[in-house]
Amino acid sequence: MTFDELSHQIFKKQSYLCVGLDTDPRKLPAHLLTEPDPVFAFNKAIIDATADFAVAYKPNIAFYEAQGPRGWESLQKTLEYIPGDCFTIADAKRGDIGNTSGLYARAFFDPSAAGLDFDSITVAPYMGQDSVEPFLEYPGKWVILLALTSNAGSADFQRLPTTPDGDVELFEAVMQTAKTWAGADRMMFVVGATQSTVFSRIRELTPDHFLLVPGVGAQGGSLADVSKCGLTESGGLLVNASRSILYASDGTDFADKARAEAQALQTEMATYLGQYCSRA
Amino acid sequence: MTFDELSHQIFKKQSYLCVGLDTDPRKLPAHLLTEPDPVFAFNKAIIDATADFAVAYKPNIAFYEAQGPRGWESLQKTLEYIPGDCFTIADAKRGDIGNTSGLYARAFFDPSAAGLDFDSITVAPYMGQDSVEPFLEYPGKWVILLALTSNAGSADFQRLPTTPDGDVELFEAVMQTAKTWAGADRMMFVVGATQSTVFSRIRELTPDHFLLVPGVGAQGGSLADVSKCGLTESGGLLVNASRSILYASDGTDFADKARAEAQALQTEMATYLGQYCSRA
Repeated sequence: MTFDELSHQIFKKQSYLCVGLDTDPRKLPAHLLTEPDPVFAFNKAIIDATADFAVAYKPNIAFYEAQGPRGWESLQKTLEYIPGDCFTIADAKRGDIGNTSGLYARAFFDPSAAGLDFDSITVAPYMGQDSVEPFLEYPGKWVILLALTSNAGSADFQRLPTTPDGDVELFEAVMQTAKTWAGADRMMFVVGATQSTVFSRIRELTPDHFLLVPGVGAQGGSLADVSKCGLTESGGLLVNASRSILYASDGTDFADKARAEAQALQTEMATYLGQYCSRA
Repeated sequence: MTFDELSHQIFKKQSYLCVGLDTDPRKLPAHLLTEPDPVFAFNKAIIDATADFAVAYKPNIAFYEAQGPRGWESLQKTLEYIPGDCFTIADAKRGDIGNTSGLYARAFFDPSAAGLDFDSITVAPYMGQDSVEPFLEYPGKWVILLALTSNAGSADFQRLPTTPDGDVELFEAVMQTAKTWAGADRMMFVVGATQSTVFSRIRELTPDHFLLVPGVGAQGGSLADVSKCGLTESGGLLVNASRSILYASDGTDFADKARAEAQALQTEMATYLGQYCSRA
């Protein structure tokens, strides 16, 4: 999916919601456990319930990997089921030396390899340019690079000063440098919603890039703050919610409750789009 | 495997060789392609041929992931086949927010989850302490944290100064901080063999920790330099070789040639152990 197509979907659906498919087999509603593939049955119901309100889906690869080969099959089926007008993100946080990153890129981008054809993958920047480039060699695919994450541990290294005057912290150095590797049409950055105090600095540094924003909901970030500082004329944000939608109910009404949660977020997002984007 | 057991194996085998199982289905000898699981057949032959000379095996997870569910099954069989006196490393370079890292830890450390029971996993430090701790919650399992990697891109961020006087580069800040998260009995660091100019600084900073050293062989690092600066009285090094062993020949003699490569490295290592370790 291109930058313009993603932007179009955002204004069409009046939403920049990304639904995180962090599907934990231990948290599934009991009535799904007799299904041949309970994880896929759950994801299918969640996708059906939320697709009107979401522009992106983000399977969290750890949850599938922790199921072994079976989990990989659930992931394949889930990805195939996501509607074509939604952007897909492999939340994998990979990154390795060139030839190995090339294999990870194959795994997630080349359907003839592992049966997966994601639009994008999250990548960790620690190993530098040659660890990221193999993902950019797939035409039309996106890299979503970790910049300033939503967790407490983001303070350990991401906020270290990297200049004598301390003006450029590591996450800013990462964004400045990575901007030279690919344009806003191929690269996004992960910025946690819990980092609202520096959101304006980040928007100054990357005025055109999409930001993938986890941390609203269970992690305590504010959708209002993120939207005010982060929205651009192209949309420019994908705000992720996972647990608050997936586990809104653990009963037979889980999909209805998930739909209501997604709709509530979309309604709020439509308001912010109206407030902050002249195009809306 | 404990620190003392690993150290014992090193002096018993007179080797600190780690064989990297970067098994690429496109590079297998033709006669293996009719096997039901060619990747496992290859790994089994490589393990049989090298186990006398290696103290560790390191499957590179990207190569298995790029095969989908089938690759995961090859990985399970390979891990089960590695002899019990060898240390096992999931070279996965994972790292995510706490609950997600917890799932990755389950995937690689809890055999009831994905059928894998590695001794250790490589982890990327970018997301900080709470992204690493879930791996340390498994008793007896090790974290091998990226510090200064072997690739050219290591210069992009790992070598950024993080103090006004520039004395502490990012990789050193990572090592200093991470040392407080776990002792040398639970944590190792990845340091590329291509980084020999700073190897002494690294050994000063972490005199007791094992270092996992990729980059000898295909990537051009020197075993002599690494051994001189890196060996300790406990051994303290695991030096990895992958492609130079696995693909020493692409014919029916691939295992013999792999054995010869491994033996040559072990012979060289025995010399260095004699030179630099009074215990040897």
